[in-house]
Parts: sequence; C-alpha cells; structure tokens
Amino acid sequence: MVVKIGLLGFGTVASGVPFLLAENAEKIEKAAQDSIEVAKVLVKDDAEKERLLAAGHDYNFVTNIDEILADEDIAIVVELMGRIEPAKTFITRALEAGKHIVTANKDLLAVHGSELRALAEEKGLALYYEAAVAGGIPILRTLVNSLAADKVTRILGVLNGTSNFMLTKMVDEGWTYEKALQTAQELGYAESDPTNDVEGIDAAYKAVILSQFAFGMTVDFDHVAHKGISNITPEDVAVAQELGYVIKLVGDIQETTTGISAEVSPTFLPKNHPLASVNGVMNAVFVESIGIGQSMYYGPGAGQKPTATSVTADIIRIVRRLKDKTIGKAFNEYSRPLQLAAPSDVKSEYYFSIVAPDKNGKMLRLAEIFNSEEISFKQILQQAANGETARLVIVTHEMSKTQLENVTAKLAQESDFTVLNTFKVLGE
Amino acid sequence: MVVKIGLLGFGTVASGVPFLLAENAEKIEKAAQDSIEVAKVLVKDDAEKERLLAAGHDYNFVTNIDEILADEDIAIVVELMGRIEPAKTFITRALEAGKHIVTANKDLLAVHGSELRALAEEKGLALYYEAAVAGGIPILRTLVNSLAADKVTRILGVLNGTSNFMLTKMVDEGWTYEKALQTAQELGYAESDPTNDVEGIDAAYKAVILSQFAFGMTVDFDHVAHKGISNITPEDVAVAQELGYVIKLVGDIQETTTGISAEVSPTFLPKNHPLASVNGVMNAVFVESIGIGQSMYYGPGAGQKPTATSVTADIIRIVRRLKDKTIGKAFNEYSRPLQLAAPSDVKSEYYFSIVAPDKNGKMLRLAEIFNSEEISFKQILQQAANGETARLVIVTHEMSKTQLENVTAKLAQESDFTVLNTFKVLGE
Repeated sequence: MVVKIGLLGFGTVASGVPFLLAENAEKIEKAAQDSIEVAKVLVKDDAEKERLLAAGHDYNFVTNIDEILADEDIAIVVELMGRIEPAKTFITRALEAGKHIVTANKDLLAVHGSELRALAEEKGLALYYEAAVAGGIPILRTLVNSLAADKVTRILGVLNGTSNFMLTKMVDEGWTYEKALQTAQELGYAESDPTNDVEGIDAAYKAVILSQFAFGMTVDFDHVAHKGISNITPEDVAVAQELGYVIKLVGDIQETTTGISAEVSPTFLPKNHPLASVNGVMNAVFVESIGIGQSMYYGPGAGQKPTATSVTADIIRIVRRLKDKTIGKAFNEYSRPLQLAAPSDVKSEYYFSIVAPDKNGKMLRLAEIFNSEEISFKQILQQAANGETARLVIVTHEMSKTQLENVTAKLAQESDFTVLNTFKVLGE
Repeated sequence: MVVKIGLLGFGTVASGVPFLLAENAEKIEKAAQDSIEVAKVLVKDDAEKERLLAAGHDYNFVTNIDEILADEDIAIVVELMGRIEPAKTFITRALEAGKHIVTANKDLLAVHGSELRALAEEKGLALYYEAAVAGGIPILRTLVNSLAADKVTRILGVLNGTSNFMLTKMVDEGWTYEKALQTAQELGYAESDPTNDVEGIDAAYKAVILSQFAFGMTVDFDHVAHKGISNITPEDVAVAQELGYVIKLVGDIQETTTGISAEVSPTFLPKNHPLASVNGVMNAVFVESIGIGQSMYYGPGAGQKPTATSVTADIIRIVRRLKDKTIGKAFNEYSRPLQLAAPSDVKSEYYFSIVAPDKNGKMLRLAEIFNSEEISFKQILQQAANGETARLVIVTHEMSKTQLENVTAKLAQESDFTVLNTFKVLGE
C-alpha cells in the first residue's frame, strides 16, 4: 500500500522530507512497512508555485488548503510553515478532516498544544512533533519510550543554536555580543529581528514541551521565566573563564518537593560539565533522573536534514501504527496535574557583577546586605578599580529564588551599588 | 490486569528492577497500561535463597528454572545472570515455553544472537535487550525508532566504562596502566581477571550488536578486530596531549563502498571531539549519519539503576505490546546481507611510536619505508635521545588498513626500528 502525505509549506526543512524518502527509500519502507508518497504540497501562491516548478521541483503544488483537506487519499498532513497562523487553523481543520498530523512547530505547540492535542485525541488521530524540540535530537520519543521506567528530576538544555553559536564565539574568540549577532545574521543563523533566539523565547517554547514529556506537567509559556544573552559582557565571559565556568543559555526544568520550575537563563556551567562543551549551533539535552542518573542527548538543533529526519521518523511511526492498527495513542501519555514549585524551594548558586564606588567600607556594606538575607559568599573577586569605581564579582552559595528577589530589591535601593548582571551558577 | 515476570538471577542489576517497579509504579503502570509483578526469582541454590530471605528480600525465590517455565501465569522472563551458560539454555527453554524475553546479556547476544532471535521470531515472541549496549544509554531503541529515516555511516563509541575510567586516570592524573588497573579493581570497576574490559572484548561484543541496529548487518564477533589498552604507556598519553589529542578506547563501525568494518582500538581523538570529554565510567555513542549529521548519546554504561532502567523500559514495551496485540515484532527489523569492507577501503590517520638508534640517516630510512607504501607524514616528533636510541613519533595522513599492514611488516624486518605502538588517529 502507499500512504499519501500532504506537505504544508516547501521551505528548507520541508524539501528535506522528500529527499530522505527517496535517499533511504528501502530502509524507510522496511520500517514503515508501506511506501510513503508526497501527494500534494501547499505553497503560498501561484508565483511560488511557478518558481518551484521552474526550479525543477516535480511536485503537485497547490495553493488552497482545501485541495489537501478534501483529498481522501491523503492520510497525513505535515505542517512545516512555522509560526502560529495560519498553521493553527490548517492543523485544526486537518484534524477535523481526519488527517494525522506531523509538525515541527514549537511556537504553536508551546502556546496552543493542549487544545490541538485534545482535538487529536477526540478524533483518535496522531499528532507527533519530535522535530519541535532540538531539531535532530530524538529527545521526545526517548523520554516517552526509554525513560518510561525512570523518574526525571531535572532537565538542563542548550536548546537554541543561534544563541549558542553567538556565546561560543564570545567565549572562544572574545567577541562582543554585537559582533556575534552581526556574524550570526550574516551566516543566516539569526533573523533580522533576533528577539526570539537571543532573548530565550525560542528556548522557553522548547522548555514548555520538554516539561510535558519529562515531568508529565503542562506548564504555560508564561510560567517559564526567560532571560536572554544580550546583556552578557566580555567582562562576564572573562570572569566566568577565570573562575572555571563557561556561560551558556540554559533551559532548566526541575522538580522540587512543591512542584516544577522552568526557566531559561544565561548560566555558568562548570568547565567539566558535559553541556559546557556543546559548542556552535549544536544543541544538547542533559537529563538527571533517579534511574539512569545522568544522560545527555546531543545533536544539531536545526537545519534541513536533521529536522527532516525527525519529521520523517514521525511519519514512519504513523504509517506503521496505521498498519498495526494502534493509531491514535497520544505522542506523550505521561500526564500529572500541574504543580508549580514555590520560589523559596527553587535553589541555585548565583553570580553577581556589581559596580561600587572605590572607597572604604563598600565590601562591608555589601556583606551586610547579603547577610541580612542569609546568603553566604562562595567566591569574591574584586577587579582593578579605575580610581572612582570598582567592579565586584560575587558567587554565592546556594540560595532560593525568594532570596534572590529580596537581595536584588535591597541592592536596588542602595545608591552606591549598581548590579550589572546576575546569572545562575551550576554547582559542581 | 497484572503481567507477571520471572527474574533469572538476583544480582545488582536484577534487584534494581523491583526497585524501579515500586518507586515509579504510577508512571510505569500508565505507560504499560497494566501493572507488572515480579512473580518468581531464580537463584542458584538454597543457601542463596536463605541468605536473600534473611536479608529481608521478600520474593518468591526458586532454585529450579522449571518452576518459572512451567508457570503459565509468567509472561516475561528477565535474564540477568550474565555469561553464556546457563543463560543460553534458560533463554532457549523459556522461548520454547512461550515466554517473552528481556536480557542485558551482551556476551550471549553477540555470540549466539542470531540463533536466539530466529527462535523468538519463529515463536512470535519478544526478545529485547536495550541494556546490553551501554547500560543506561537508550541507544538501541533510538537507532530503531528515531533513526528509522536516517542512514548511519559511522558509529564511534566509548563502550567500556572500566577501561574509560582507567584511561581517564592515565590522561588526567598521569597514572600508569598498572596503577589505573589496581585502582579500578579496588573500586570494583574491574574484575580480578580484567581481560574482557581492558582488551576490548566487552566493547567488541557491543560493536557486534550496534552493527545490527545501525547498519542492519550481523557481523560475527570474529569480524571485530579488537585491541586493548594494556600497552598504552605514559609516553603515548603525553604525546597525545602534546599533539592535541586524548586517547580513548573506541569502538568504530563504518560503512565504506565495499561494506562495513568494525573494530575496537585505542584511538587518538581531537580534544574538541564530543567523545573526548566522556570521562570516568561514563559511556557514549557518537553517530554520523546522512540525515541528522552528528549526534551523541551519553550516559552510564553500567550500574544497578541505569541498567535496570533500560531493562524495565523493555518490560514496559512488552506489556504494552501485549495490550496492543502487536507483540512479536523483532526488536530490530533492519536487516541487510552482510558485506565486509575490503581492508584497502578502510582508511584512517595513524600514530606510530618507534624506537631507533640515535644515528645519522634513521629519519631518511624511515621516510623511505613509509614512502614505499605511499604513506605521507602529517606530524613528526623526535623525542630527546638518550645517546643510544631516540623515540620517533609519527602521525600519518590517511592510509588504508592494507597500507598499515604492509608498512608494519616492512618495519618489522628492519633491525634498526622497534615499533612500540600503533594507534588510530581520528582526523578533525
């Protein structure tokens, strides 16, 4: 039998799907036990259709979604347009028309996932999205299948290739943020508006999805505090190196006794931590669990072929389940009621970079402020003063989010101190 | 419904299975959709049974395999005794009695896997063994499911925790092989007879299994050339560091135009290669493929809970498939006729450590020998001579196994040269 699919969009990733289907036809057909055919491809308008045909792409391009939805031969709709709309409308209509869905759309799933999953479940249809988190890394299905017997306690992830490329250049080559961004844009890694990548929004979308698979809890995007890399200075990078750390933008989801906490923030990682050597545009997900202990899944977070590989694995799985008559199982069946951790329960070491007047007693005053919140110092570094001001770097012992908030408020009230940056520090 | 399992053996790993079943009962039952119960546990004799009962282990211990095989309520037999016999006989008999099998027995699967898989297939029974390769790392199921659309071209693996612990100490602390071995034995990482670990035999067993999952080809254990770490000297370690490499014992399986080649050997890895920072008892499998490109799966290669996590994931999968009525599919369905690569087709850079008389013309003679086999030098290092002999270190450009064999034979004929060591070098 031939299972027919409809592709929505024919951008970089989408064109990788027919490439893999052709290149690995024999292996894929053995795994799927049926052959897979791209029956129709939805493109924006006639101009795009003409352009693609002229470029030698030999597909049945259509410009109206109805031509795919009304085609009873098409069993699977593969959405690779990205962004919320019209993807959301098209997927909703495709589910209503009885089509199984494969998508790589993390924005959509992070924000409207519950709704779409509920519809798919109601209709007994598959909704798979391995490629939505960390592109080529098969982390979602691994959490479902291989960690089924395990209990995840924490996930730390380098989840955004663009910001990781920029930070790698800032660390290895001493580049400024501005130079790193400009280069990332020139290389096509960053868009002209880089906000989603550099402010941790893209990584926060992925953290929402990872929370569901690893902890069975559906956090909202708004529950994921996110902080980006745009205010990291060469001084921060240099101090991190001096103290034995590497700065990475890390998605951190952990379960405490009161619930789960998810955030994305620049984090000092000890140099010997497996995530510390994840460089360039690569991604990695580091999992702490009571069974396996520590494991890490490393690979490209984006790109045509890696993403298409994850998408095609989802397609194969659907075709196989159609054959086995086990279709309709949710991609992730692990689900518990959402409980968010109390801020007093979420603990970490922290780095503070503070500018103070170069005069007697400033260290004493700073110590008094931290001490009043019962925060103790692990490392202190005073950098060469310029006669007027000095830069103080403090790494604290473990403290809670509540303590962090309180001490930050107190420091803001002191006219002598200006907090330049506060970053999380992962203990050894 | 309750699915009952029979455990064969109650060593470290086996006792981790009931721990996980209890600790994660709720999540496991959701994933399996039935509850799982350890009905009987086979132990060696009455003395062991009494000892375990006295230690507070509250199981139905039996000393005769027939009590498990004849028990119609037991659906799954979990073999965790290790070694070939009596494991092979017990698994064979269990399959004949209609039981599904989960095992972590790499020795058995590498040597007698084909036979056992054929029997399981004939009987329509499951034979799963995720834990047999790299303990807690879910590499086998990931290759089956997530790389279904991909074509693997090379696998490089740090597959033996004991030897990796030893090499890490030799590299980081400058320990000798002897000191590293003694410490590994004291810590319980190495057995009193460490042959399987340090000579690459254990890693070669795992390479046999990985070849089936990644390349669909069943190589025999005898096809996997293996070389261990016992002849690595502190001088080799120091030179590696000087040249920017780390020495690891690496399982290397690759597909060339003529077929596949699998071997286990000490390998110089560039310091920035993801495998280079896999330290201590940790394992990792680095996969090169046409779709994903480069990905790596990192975690503990052994240990009670990691291994039990993989075993329990296999059990859950069987229970779920019993429920879904899709039981009996082979763990790995990817299969192609075996084709072994021609030695002239398997290429790498190589490191040679050679002792030569400290006299004129030795470098010329050496260059002549390598040149006669069309092997060119990438790096040459002459170490301080002691007046009588000098140590020459050569890193070659890429050359084939055939060239390696020829040049090694020629060097052996030269009375002036003694080749101390030859190791593979992974190019950047």
